[in-house]
Amino acid sequence: MNFDDLLKEPGEWLKGKGASSKIVISSRVRLARNLDGIPFPGWAGKREREEVLKLSARSISACPILKNALSLELNKLSALDRQFLVERYLISREFAESKIERAAVIGEKEMVSLMINEEDHLRLQSLHSGFEIEEAWRLVSQVDDEIGKRVKYAFSDHWGFLTACPTNCGTGLRASAMLHLPALVMTKQINKVFQVLSKVGVAVRGFYGEGTQASGNFFQVSNQITLGQSEEEIIDNLERIIRQIIDHEEKAREILLKKSRFELEDKVGRAYGILEYSHIMNSQEALELLSLFRLGVDIGIITKISIESQNKLLIIIQPAHLQKMEGRALTPAERDTKRADVIKKAIR
Amino acid sequence: MNFDDLLKEPGEWLKGKGASSKIVISSRVRLARNLDGIPFPGWAGKREREEVLKLSARSISACPILKNALSLELNKLSALDRQFLVERYLISREFAESKIERAAVIGEKEMVSLMINEEDHLRLQSLHSGFEIEEAWRLVSQVDDEIGKRVKYAFSDHWGFLTACPTNCGTGLRASAMLHLPALVMTKQINKVFQVLSKVGVAVRGFYGEGTQASGNFFQVSNQITLGQSEEEIIDNLERIIRQIIDHEEKAREILLKKSRFELEDKVGRAYGILEYSHIMNSQEALELLSLFRLGVDIGIITKISIESQNKLLIIIQPAHLQKMEGRALTPAERDTKRADVIKKAIR
Repeated sequence: MNFDDLLKEPGEWLKGKGASSKIVISSRVRLARNLDGIPFPGWAGKREREEVLKLSARSISACPILKNALSLELNKLSALDRQFLVERYLISREFAESKIERAAVIGEKEMVSLMINEEDHLRLQSLHSGFEIEEAWRLVSQVDDEIGKRVKYAFSDHWGFLTACPTNCGTGLRASAMLHLPALVMTKQINKVFQVLSKVGVAVRGFYGEGTQASGNFFQVSNQITLGQSEEEIIDNLERIIRQIIDHEEKAREILLKKSRFELEDKVGRAYGILEYSHIMNSQEALELLSLFRLGVDIGIITKISIESQNKLLIIIQPAHLQKMEGRALTPAERDTKRADVIKKAIR
Repeated sequence: MNFDDLLKEPGEWLKGKGASSKIVISSRVRLARNLDGIPFPGWAGKREREEVLKLSARSISACPILKNALSLELNKLSALDRQFLVERYLISREFAESKIERAAVIGEKEMVSLMINEEDHLRLQSLHSGFEIEEAWRLVSQVDDEIGKRVKYAFSDHWGFLTACPTNCGTGLRASAMLHLPALVMTKQINKVFQVLSKVGVAVRGFYGEGTQASGNFFQVSNQITLGQSEEEIIDNLERIIRQIIDHEEKAREILLKKSRFELEDKVGRAYGILEYSHIMNSQEALELLSLFRLGVDIGIITKISIESQNKLLIIIQPAHLQKMEGRALTPAERDTKRADVIKKAIR
């Protein structure tokens, strides 16, 4: 597996498989882990961080699930390639921009990936298509066990897994799902949903992750609490909540279809028309229109394109993906043109 | 000729023929005339107005150009039919809404039409396709001469033709053209053009005539002065000014194509996409998008539809036309649906 393969074939998590894959684009579970006896990356010296890289690499290479994984020293990657990995949800924005000794490991089909020397020594994640948090948890947990056989994790009987930031302490687990909730937005119920979520310890972010605004009716929801509950409790709890959100979204879609099918068809039709005929399109507008497009496919107004193609489209219209596809740096204006072009080809 | 023929075949002035017909949709000349010795319609009594109708009818029926003309007693028409005639530029809004004894006469192909007992006893107009003010003047002048042989017009050697409103006194002539000036709007030169026009005695109105806002880059320009100049001077002057506006618009289009062809293609493409795929469209949006569509055809981005079809489309998407086509009254929401449908069929 090499870097270019990533461009050729976006990961398994974009296949549009899994439960409720119309509404739940993807599920993700990540674990924060640190090696015992070595300062956290932000406090460690160069040599200690290199030690972390070495120890991690050794334990990872012994892990069957990560056979054929792609190992990337971040300092050897161009800014564009790093941004590409961010857009692919394989590394964090902070990790891409950090200057310290660090590496990423990407397993086959992007099912499992790791960041070494991010905020913690190890960040393990598993990405799955659809509403498959349980499956993502099972997979990342296996990798965690495998690595845990070979290194000693920083662990306290009282606090659980120790992490650089106390908000990750305990299980070190963050589970999330990317949801598409256009009907809750259109029926103006979304803010009420968010209010409830914040009360039950669920955070909401935009399509492009932490610190980004929600765009085009895509929302990433994740657990905020990592401590005082078992991994299974955290995941059960989040799954239960997401199931409720899916129910609400489905009901809202039914109501929309019953009460204003025609207006909905108009909105979807217009989105389709613009996506098909525009020559210039920025990211924000693209997400908004692709959201309407997706809704149109879900409710049967548009029948031309698979969920997989739609999921991929959401990813490949991002700046670094567009530039990698084009094989050269593009100005923002050129990207807007390329984006319109890529969309047009995909939906026609 | 009967009323339904109007619906079946919109007039000659929509054929997209004549000079500069890309930019100049139509030309119109109207004359205000009153019968000597009878008070203006607003002051006259019922019997006097009926006398005007009788005298006019007699002189009109003798006029060769108005052979086979359609004569309509306005009080016998439904509100919908009256609105239909307004939308067709065959009668004025005020005339449609007035309650007094009045009639309209519509010549074949809508080349010549008359209002009897509008603000003046007689309003004669000729509508032509393209930039053909001269031709419209020649035709309306012939009708004026024919009628003038049979009735005595109110005329003063000092003031010229006498009219109910002093702003029409003298020649009683108002010439106008409907212009499509998207490039002047896009390059933000239009307000400068309007400022100059107001200084040289040229009024600017919107697509739907007096008192309406300019929509979709369509502007009706007309002479404000009717007194102290001969008919030929008024027309020459207006033609010269319109020729300059056309020049400016053509230059602005060249500049747009040179400097921002791509942005223009994007705008036109989006308009096309929405026109093709929307299910609900109000008048204002339709005019705006059809303006971009027209520009797209003019500059060769879209090649699917004739100027004639476009001109007709601008007329038939109006409320009364939509209702006449549907054969029944439509709510505003139903009209928006019908409008989207009519446009879709025309441009596909």
